Amino acid sequence: MSYRAPLRDMRFVLHELFDVGGHCELLGNGLDRETIDGVLEEAARYAGEVVAPLNRNSDEQGCQFRDGEVTTPDGFRDAYRQYVDNGWASMTGPVEFDGQGFPQLVAACFHEMLMGASLSFRAYSGLTEGAVLALHTHGSEELKRLYLPRMVSGEWTGTMCLTEPQAGTDLALLRTRAEPQADGSYKVSGSKIFISGGEQDLTDNIVHLVLARLPDAPAGVKGISLLLVPKFIAREDGSLGERNALSCGAIEHKMGIKGASTCVMNFDGATGWLVGAPNQGLACMFTMMNDARFQVGLQGLGIAEAAFQGALGYARERLQSRALTGPAAPDRPADPIIVHPDVRRMLLTQKTLSEGGRMLAAYCARQLDLEHGHPDAEARKAAGKRAALLIPIVKAFLTDLGQEVASLGVQVYGGHGYIREWGMEQLMRDSRITQIYEGTNGIQALDLIRRKLLGDGGAELGALLAEFSDLADHAARRPALAWLAQAVQTRLGEWRELGTEVIAASQRDPQEIGAMSMDFLQYSAYVLLAGLWLQAAARAQDALEAGSGEAAFYQAKLHSADFYVRRVLPRASAHREALLGGAGCLMAMDEESFAF
Amino acid sequence: MSYRAPLRDMRFVLHELFDVGGHCELLGNGLDRETIDGVLEEAARYAGEVVAPLNRNSDEQGCQFRDGEVTTPDGFRDAYRQYVDNGWASMTGPVEFDGQGFPQLVAACFHEMLMGASLSFRAYSGLTEGAVLALHTHGSEELKRLYLPRMVSGEWTGTMCLTEPQAGTDLALLRTRAEPQADGSYKVSGSKIFISGGEQDLTDNIVHLVLARLPDAPAGVKGISLLLVPKFIAREDGSLGERNALSCGAIEHKMGIKGASTCVMNFDGATGWLVGAPNQGLACMFTMMNDARFQVGLQGLGIAEAAFQGALGYARERLQSRALTGPAAPDRPADPIIVHPDVRRMLLTQKTLSEGGRMLAAYCARQLDLEHGHPDAEARKAAGKRAALLIPIVKAFLTDLGQEVASLGVQVYGGHGYIREWGMEQLMRDSRITQIYEGTNGIQALDLIRRKLLGDGGAELGALLAEFSDLADHAARRPALAWLAQAVQTRLGEWRELGTEVIAASQRDPQEIGAMSMDFLQYSAYVLLAGLWLQAAARAQDALEAGSGEAAFYQAKLHSADFYVRRVLPRASAHREALLGGAGCLMAMDEESFAF
Repeated sequence: MSYRAPLRDMRFVLHELFDVGGHCELLGNGLDRETIDGVLEEAARYAGEVVAPLNRNSDEQGCQFRDGEVTTPDGFRDAYRQYVDNGWASMTGPVEFDGQGFPQLVAACFHEMLMGASLSFRAYSGLTEGAVLALHTHGSEELKRLYLPRMVSGEWTGTMCLTEPQAGTDLALLRTRAEPQADGSYKVSGSKIFISGGEQDLTDNIVHLVLARLPDAPAGVKGISLLLVPKFIAREDGSLGERNALSCGAIEHKMGIKGASTCVMNFDGATGWLVGAPNQGLACMFTMMNDARFQVGLQGLGIAEAAFQGALGYARERLQSRALTGPAAPDRPADPIIVHPDVRRMLLTQKTLSEGGRMLAAYCARQLDLEHGHPDAEARKAAGKRAALLIPIVKAFLTDLGQEVASLGVQVYGGHGYIREWGMEQLMRDSRITQIYEGTNGIQALDLIRRKLLGDGGAELGALLAEFSDLADHAARRPALAWLAQAVQTRLGEWRELGTEVIAASQRDPQEIGAMSMDFLQYSAYVLLAGLWLQAAARAQDALEAGSGEAAFYQAKLHSADFYVRRVLPRASAHREALLGGAGCLMAMDEESFAF
Repeated sequence: MSYRAPLRDMRFVLHELFDVGGHCELLGNGLDRETIDGVLEEAARYAGEVVAPLNRNSDEQGCQFRDGEVTTPDGFRDAYRQYVDNGWASMTGPVEFDGQGFPQLVAACFHEMLMGASLSFRAYSGLTEGAVLALHTHGSEELKRLYLPRMVSGEWTGTMCLTEPQAGTDLALLRTRAEPQADGSYKVSGSKIFISGGEQDLTDNIVHLVLARLPDAPAGVKGISLLLVPKFIAREDGSLGERNALSCGAIEHKMGIKGASTCVMNFDGATGWLVGAPNQGLACMFTMMNDARFQVGLQGLGIAEAAFQGALGYARERLQSRALTGPAAPDRPADPIIVHPDVRRMLLTQKTLSEGGRMLAAYCARQLDLEHGHPDAEARKAAGKRAALLIPIVKAFLTDLGQEVASLGVQVYGGHGYIREWGMEQLMRDSRITQIYEGTNGIQALDLIRRKLLGDGGAELGALLAEFSDLADHAARRPALAWLAQAVQTRLGEWRELGTEVIAASQRDPQEIGAMSMDFLQYSAYVLLAGLWLQAAARAQDALEAGSGEAAFYQAKLHSADFYVRRVLPRASAHREALLGGAGCLMAMDEESFAF
């Protein structure tokens, strides 16, 4: 399967929807439209020509494990070398450590491309960026000086070592211990599982960020500390020193992302250093968690785009049966299956979810940028709140849609979709993990209600709704957009009421939090996407009214918005009704009565 | 992963919901309740203890192909031998060929068990039963005498050879040719793909039913004939004769069901005999198609049950986090995750879809039995119409729910769900093909509207609705069921209106057939399941009022019905709204405008 970055759509989102030029000016990063477009064109070449061709084989070959060492699939080493040498690794890194300081709004496009080209390959670099962020924010000057430059450049990678066999979602249960030493370092001992890139042959060093307990730490999550535990300890000059007492014990055999090593990591009194204050590990980890969750959302998006491209290509070529209205290609033995309404239903669902998801990711990325880089402190705070509200939606919804769009891709291919060589089923297998890791989607939904909605009594949701409602009001005054705007406005009002209901119900009965969470997240996401599609339609209408030379592109945006609102948005009704079904019917069944 | 047949639920469906004893009496097959229960207990042992333990390895090992021969995974040969020796193969076979003539209503339970134990293993025997049906209905006495006894006993298997590279859904395009010979036989030449069990090492002979064109046959589907083409030609005494000119050219590498061989079959002037009249091949094939589609529905159901069992077991054992209302198991480090409402949402969705699907399958199986075995000709005809209406719903909906329930199983397992050794991801991979083969689910949806709904102007749907509506009326008069009955009644009325709207729209614009098809099928299925859940609730209420000693079982049925109607049935609203979105938004986009 080939992968071609959706550059035109990315430019639409960046320039026409979110004014990335003005955004960069505000952030003061010196980037202009031409630079951004040029970088993304180069990025598209790298993703499409260097990375994507490795993906199919990486699934067949997988990672190999022998005597504690991991061999990545053929071509990964070369592709990774280019990733480092050509500066792709340092795109978002902090400028004072030789990073390029690109905003997330732009980087998200590149990262989406990487995800679409190969989820496995991206696994090694994706977590490094989160580790850089955590270390940069919470690490000592000494640790930063020794480790950050090579992590920013990509010469060394980073990992997140959280999960233990008995502690997955529930980090309170973790047992890995860190014993303080006289020299200020710690000896870390314990076993971690599901560590992505825990061992690999792409880089000389791997810097593990490990959650562990100090002696006499309080029980539960308040007694967890974050430690930097490198595979090789850096010497004073930054070169590789002593091999640390840690090793990869095994790699997992998984459903997908087989080119990404998923490791059991054993720490046997390995030397580490605290990152942040003792017992503040969870807070430090959360710094990278927002980034990691955003990145996982992009994984779903990248997979969705790749699956849509594959299915569209196949639907245009594959000849089966005649159109319901009579032959569309009478000179051929049958019509291309794209003439069939049900195939179009699948393709347009793929298209509007992928393009809608891209708008949502960009909307969130913009808030992440403003949170860290807006010159005004109040604006930074406001953007932080908005990003916090959006992150669980982005992570869960984009990964759910990645799985759905990949599955639709398999369905469009028919029997061939089930055969490995065609590549569609791999997208389903690869993407399935994204709904699970970095906090399952169920945990995202809980986070949305518990921390984000109940956390401020619905204030931030109200602000978001006001913003979208204003835009819908404005659009409603334009005849060409009136129907669409009204449909969206109705949903926004419903969303507001639902938010109020969720808060009230949660206060009546804490079980309602968990009972309503997934449906509330899904409802919110579908309506949010509708709001974004309305904005896309408004920009398209602007362009058409201005006599754009790309009328077909903008017309397609209007058709897509219409399709989304008529045929996808109705799912919000199901989520609303289910949510209002309440917690009672979930909790009434005795545990013993689930099966007889 | 272990598999335990849900015998208690099967007995509920067979005896309490569908009175299998009375059913057998009507059919005159001499089976009574004790015999049926005894057979199913034995069946449960065979599926759970002989077949299920082979499933995990069959995925890792797969089928091996060398020099035209296929080796099945370890243990399949022994398990298949038991399948034949202990009479499981002949359960539904015609009595005059030494079959046991079990009704589908009972056999469906056994077949569901086989599917739940191993979809791969079941692939070899499942198609044989369809081939027996087609041969028994349309074959010459000579062919039946030579081939049926050993196919009924399972000594020989059967296949369906339909698909060719250019002809999948669209059989009009098929090219395989059959040249008549002086002795009344034919020489069959052509290449078929995706042939399940086309080659294997379980049996001495394989009887292929092949679609091909006779010379000068009319173009399209009216020029297709069905031929019996055995791997070894049977001698007059029924023993193995000459090896036929056909061979397996390759096996496919697939997403799942890796223990089932999916073969490229090359026919090189192979000797075959007509089954049925020339050019009537499609009609003959449709005899086995209904059976095959019903069986594929059972595959979805079997997978769903297996995934539910796995997830439930894990949710009871896995300790993570505390209940939202405070510790439920204060003496343990955390609560079992079944205390969490969102985990319960997943488990109850699995449970109510699986048990609901079982009721739907049984309801359909009963009609299939009556179609073939009711003493009254009018009643046979009526049952045939009902079965015809139900088959596309059973095939598509049960396979969709199989995939959903398997995916929920992966989600409940969290990270472990993604690891192969735990078995959950295999269920997802294995079941994904069921939405595609024997007519994609999109094709089922088209069939439902085009042949079944428009075919009689909605008469059969009206009859079904009247039946369910009467039951709901009756239930509405019982206070304990009134709310549930009213909710179902409302949906039944909505379904009736939707059916009328679908017929009207299809007549206005043929594109609407394809545009509305999938949402109409899904809508219909969810409401049908609600009607069945209401019946289950009524039987449970009967039992409770009669002071049953199994109060917990029946109480769980009431809770399940309530959950289904409150939290799953709302999806019908989304399908209704989407359907009413119309064809315009599907057809408006130019083919060139799907991507830029």
